Amino acid sequence: MSKKYAIGIDLGGTNLRVALVSEEGEIIRKIKRPSSDKIIDSVIQSIEDIGHGEIEGIGFGVAGLIDRKEGRVFVSPNLHAIEGIDFTNEIGSRFKVPVFIENDANVAALGEKIGGAGKGFKNFVLLTLGTGIGGGIIYQGELLNVSAEIGHMSINTEGEKCSCGNTGCLENYASARAMIAKAVVFLEKGSESLLKECCKGSFYKLTPEDIYKAALEGDILAREILKDAGKHLGIGLANIINILSPEAMILTGGLIGAWNIYVQEAIKEASRRAFKDLFDSVKIIPSSLGDEAGIIGAASLVFNELSKESPKTV
Amino acid sequence: MSKKYAIGIDLGGTNLRVALVSEEGEIIRKIKRPSSDKIIDSVIQSIEDIGHGEIEGIGFGVAGLIDRKEGRVFVSPNLHAIEGIDFTNEIGSRFKVPVFIENDANVAALGEKIGGAGKGFKNFVLLTLGTGIGGGIIYQGELLNVSAEIGHMSINTEGEKCSCGNTGCLENYASARAMIAKAVVFLEKGSESLLKECCKGSFYKLTPEDIYKAALEGDILAREILKDAGKHLGIGLANIINILSPEAMILTGGLIGAWNIYVQEAIKEASRRAFKDLFDSVKIIPSSLGDEAGIIGAASLVFNELSKESPKTV
Repeated sequence: MSKKYAIGIDLGGTNLRVALVSEEGEIIRKIKRPSSDKIIDSVIQSIEDIGHGEIEGIGFGVAGLIDRKEGRVFVSPNLHAIEGIDFTNEIGSRFKVPVFIENDANVAALGEKIGGAGKGFKNFVLLTLGTGIGGGIIYQGELLNVSAEIGHMSINTEGEKCSCGNTGCLENYASARAMIAKAVVFLEKGSESLLKECCKGSFYKLTPEDIYKAALEGDILAREILKDAGKHLGIGLANIINILSPEAMILTGGLIGAWNIYVQEAIKEASRRAFKDLFDSVKIIPSSLGDEAGIIGAASLVFNELSKESPKTV
Repeated sequence: MSKKYAIGIDLGGTNLRVALVSEEGEIIRKIKRPSSDKIIDSVIQSIEDIGHGEIEGIGFGVAGLIDRKEGRVFVSPNLHAIEGIDFTNEIGSRFKVPVFIENDANVAALGEKIGGAGKGFKNFVLLTLGTGIGGGIIYQGELLNVSAEIGHMSINTEGEKCSCGNTGCLENYASARAMIAKAVVFLEKGSESLLKECCKGSFYKLTPEDIYKAALEGDILAREILKDAGKHLGIGLANIINILSPEAMILTGGLIGAWNIYVQEAIKEASRRAFKDLFDSVKIIPSSLGDEAGIIGAASLVFNELSKESPKTV
């Protein structure tokens, strides 16, 4: 039998990633371009560029809340341009192949399961730690078909208002956006810090990398920001461990670059809070596929769905 | 083919409940007696009393964190007497039948799925609202084999210390224990309230029923206690809705007697906090089996496991 291929598309963040992927999860070709407001045009152009001659279908991972019945995006707080787009019809009718859609963190979890850090686990939870915080849950080897909006779990009753409408969301304390917002407040108040030298005074241009670099140089404000975000991440980890008792928590996204301060603090906090027996049974580890988990997982949506429709005979 | 039976045992609260249950979830006979420290003796006596002539096995629902590998109870904050007991061996070897063990809220969820309010839903989350708060998750018609310790999800970073070791747990704000603790504090401070007349000054003997009754008579303190607990329950509901996007949340336990104040407040708070599209898709409803969900679900553990071992032929 000849090999099967699908196109996996990751509309998860500031970049649009498109790849031709084999059924085994091997990336044959890939493209990356910045996300734009003309999202459908960019997607179509990328599919043309990558080649769609013999594909079984196209899978999307998109940042936002998915309408599982209709194959649309309900809300995408970080990428409004994709809200309401009917990917299944618009892309499916153009390329005459089946189109599937999932949340971006959910497909990243699938990708890690197929060929990454999740390979050896039947039950794990993946968290994407970047501008926002997303989640994907693998249960008995398969993606749990749920929203998994772990970043929008409130951990602080009377906390700050979140863009999602809730208050005190995990994302408001433990994401890159939260770290930078906190740094800006302190720097504008005149706090002493190496970060003052960054960005020529345009503090809002700070990145988590700037903060981590300053922390490694011993900057107190930078260390405090990373540790505080880490502590809150630990509360989120403990909650998920108490509810889902996973074998592993796999962490991915830009922020895991700050593992030694941010994630270590999170692990310490989670160990204090989660049930001891559950904490002792969970491994908290980094992803191994990084940015490529999304495109591999998105392509796998196609193979998963097709294998359900025509069960393999032995 | 003749009917099949199992014994379901609910070690969930202050009472030990034992029933002979058919494969269809029908209760043939049942017994209730107070839990005691000599828990194994009581269990054995109850099984003898109910009759175990032709049973397929015995299923337990126990309050606490289950060691899924070993069939023991790791921790049971509200029923220490059962910690570490090896039910599978102690009961199994005595009665020469297979023994299965699950968390009490998990078996209640199974019970509601088989013959209660969960019958029409493929994906729902059950919450037991009593002295503590427990959870059980049904996904694609089956029990999710996870800890589901939803009551020990922290919703308040800097909150009160919980007996589980975490701080700010949902259970510390929304359970019967939390309500009574709050009432005692206010009454001891001399707050004006109808509740002062209860229990001849032994405020710790107050029950949630006393509080609800006073609230219905217009008592301001009692209303405030119920509404505050309900508000916190609503935060927990919103978190679960955002993470698990269930079709229904089924509420059970003594506190749902106060539905019109406590649960209504929770629903209002959840509607403010959860993603609108997810909230609009979830039904928040009371259990229909009440106390019997646990024994029915516990018995069904036996049939579920046996059907896995010998798949039905068509």
